[in-house]
Amino acid sequence: MDNFSFYSPTFFEFGKKAEEKAGKLVKRFGGSKVLIHYGGGSVVRSGLLDRVKASLEAEGIPFVELGGVKPNPRSGLVYEGIELGKKEGVDFILAVGGGSTIDSSKAIAAGMVYDGDFWDFYQGKEILQALPVGTVLTIAAAGSEGSPNSVITNENGMFKRGAGGDAIRPKFSILNPELTQTLPPFQTAAGATDIMAHLYERYLTNTTDVEVTDRLIEALLLTMKNEVPKVIKDPDNYEARANIMWAGMMAHNNSCGVGRSQDWNSHTIEHELSALYDVAHGAGLAVTMPAVFKYVMNHNIMRFAQAAVRVWGCQMDFEHPENTALAGIEAFRSFLISIGMPSNFEELGAKEEDIPELVKVLCYGDGRDGKISGFVTLDENDCTKIYQMMV
Amino acid sequence: MDNFSFYSPTFFEFGKKAEEKAGKLVKRFGGSKVLIHYGGGSVVRSGLLDRVKASLEAEGIPFVELGGVKPNPRSGLVYEGIELGKKEGVDFILAVGGGSTIDSSKAIAAGMVYDGDFWDFYQGKEILQALPVGTVLTIAAAGSEGSPNSVITNENGMFKRGAGGDAIRPKFSILNPELTQTLPPFQTAAGATDIMAHLYERYLTNTTDVEVTDRLIEALLLTMKNEVPKVIKDPDNYEARANIMWAGMMAHNNSCGVGRSQDWNSHTIEHELSALYDVAHGAGLAVTMPAVFKYVMNHNIMRFAQAAVRVWGCQMDFEHPENTALAGIEAFRSFLISIGMPSNFEELGAKEEDIPELVKVLCYGDGRDGKISGFVTLDENDCTKIYQMMV
Repeated sequence: MDNFSFYSPTFFEFGKKAEEKAGKLVKRFGGSKVLIHYGGGSVVRSGLLDRVKASLEAEGIPFVELGGVKPNPRSGLVYEGIELGKKEGVDFILAVGGGSTIDSSKAIAAGMVYDGDFWDFYQGKEILQALPVGTVLTIAAAGSEGSPNSVITNENGMFKRGAGGDAIRPKFSILNPELTQTLPPFQTAAGATDIMAHLYERYLTNTTDVEVTDRLIEALLLTMKNEVPKVIKDPDNYEARANIMWAGMMAHNNSCGVGRSQDWNSHTIEHELSALYDVAHGAGLAVTMPAVFKYVMNHNIMRFAQAAVRVWGCQMDFEHPENTALAGIEAFRSFLISIGMPSNFEELGAKEEDIPELVKVLCYGDGRDGKISGFVTLDENDCTKIYQMMV
Repeated sequence: MDNFSFYSPTFFEFGKKAEEKAGKLVKRFGGSKVLIHYGGGSVVRSGLLDRVKASLEAEGIPFVELGGVKPNPRSGLVYEGIELGKKEGVDFILAVGGGSTIDSSKAIAAGMVYDGDFWDFYQGKEILQALPVGTVLTIAAAGSEGSPNSVITNENGMFKRGAGGDAIRPKFSILNPELTQTLPPFQTAAGATDIMAHLYERYLTNTTDVEVTDRLIEALLLTMKNEVPKVIKDPDNYEARANIMWAGMMAHNNSCGVGRSQDWNSHTIEHELSALYDVAHGAGLAVTMPAVFKYVMNHNIMRFAQAAVRVWGCQMDFEHPENTALAGIEAFRSFLISIGMPSNFEELGAKEEDIPELVKVLCYGDGRDGKISGFVTLDENDCTKIYQMMV
């Protein structure tokens, strides 16, 4: 096991009506004037935004609002949020929404206490200072509610990049599974796929002697395998929603990913798809992961076989473990299709003729040197083949 | 799933030589004068205490020392620590040792900023304020390095009681698995048993619809099942030690215990054994758990069967699930014996004729009303039968 540091100081308030505690939690974590940041109209229509505002008002905490966050959140709105926040003198950013809203809020929080361009952080500068961020989560997916990371799409070129630092870990996150019950099945499934990707990215590597985190990751994958079909069948299944929501946080606060190498090539390869086609990140991952897994599995066949046996219940083929590994990837792919995820470029809305462009941005965009690094280092040729496998 | 709050803000530094960061971490978390609290001579003889002191000196942080913590830590030394800490004006308590040392440090930390008798906290008063505590852990066992709890034995009657509050969660905990390699097999096994007890106490209840935490608890039990025999056979197996050490933290910081009812009757029943006979807590649990489990299993036979199948690999007997449940308890008992734990009163050093006295203190000590509460409420008669099953 590798040496590591682990720090997850976020306070989680979980359960029915938890959003009513937003005001008290902002106060507890030092906020005196809040920027409420959110996405589209659903949080308005559902009455959630009003409940959050009422909770702030009950504590006498003034606020300003900035809506309009889109999936794959854009740099433009971040600049707008920083400007508004500075003008209004806010000292706390409250995200009401999903991963995109939370990531946008983190970017604003970092940008507000930084003299330079916030995009510096998305080009590799560590975030050491930020305003405190709180979240009211509306979808189990990105895990941003408990992570030190943020991904933003730069509108100048439409490429996605990530930033990170403990300073942008949310001070508190409110997780009410009821809020996810109104999500359409496609978004529910895309969120679930993202959660499973966070687990696989930590699992399918060349790491050894990490039984404890192997088992923890498998535990969360098994949870997703059992619970996601229930909510696809019955969107109002609170208990299944609750299990998925906690699994989503645990999948990405890194308690299950410590002390081991991680991959993240599927995420990197998918980012170009969602940036170019503006597809849901989870849907892009559903198409990307099986291709990447098949392409790299021979670099550690026994680990892929382990996932197949322990998570997907495949029989171990002791003479030909590659058959077991492949059966596990196919079982995962079938699972994704069964919950309504796309399985190829066409279903995703991507185009084969764009592959050269995708590869170019992937391998050379934003200062990369022709390769992407993860469990296996992949060059232009590898990435081209992987995109072609998705067609 | 029940509503819950979850908060685990401890910073964990994990791996080889991690103790060399003690000074930097004390500084990071605001300490300017430290009380180093420890147990017997082993941390002195091993040179660990010197390395910790050197790390503090390198940061220019003055310190005073108080050794002498015993297993089942005593109230007398806590009073001594509070007095010394006040006299010396310390503002940070650094525990170097195992669960007993950490629990004693937490008690001192709470007592130092409280005008009354620190024992008030062990009679039910929540700890809302305390000096910051850091830990350098030397045994994987109690989970106190990541928990908000402390258990102290009152020398005026020799009874153990617990206290808790987020204020006594360690600010940081240093986990170096190398430090556990010198532990004798018995202590290693007793620590492992304590970790498994923390998992079972969260698992074997009447809770439903908690697939995610069920799976996480099973993951940690499977880790212990696989890794503990390795370190009993080869005490220098760093990788197995590392897996056990992280499992021990995860077992008790409650990330796997949220949203569900918990039991803790085995702990409560064992506490009287370790208080009366001064036996290792884990050894007492090894004798207590199988008896408690057999006594209460009929209250939720399918949950006990689930543990048997998922953790111990028992075949499910669909016609007679009680056979499966019992097979799981027996498999656990055999496992405990295989790692060198006692299996009955005699091996533990307890006496059958003391049972009436044990039951009296258990059910009526310190203000209890003749019963103990957990998954199943147990009265004097139940507790007598359970102790008799251990003979």
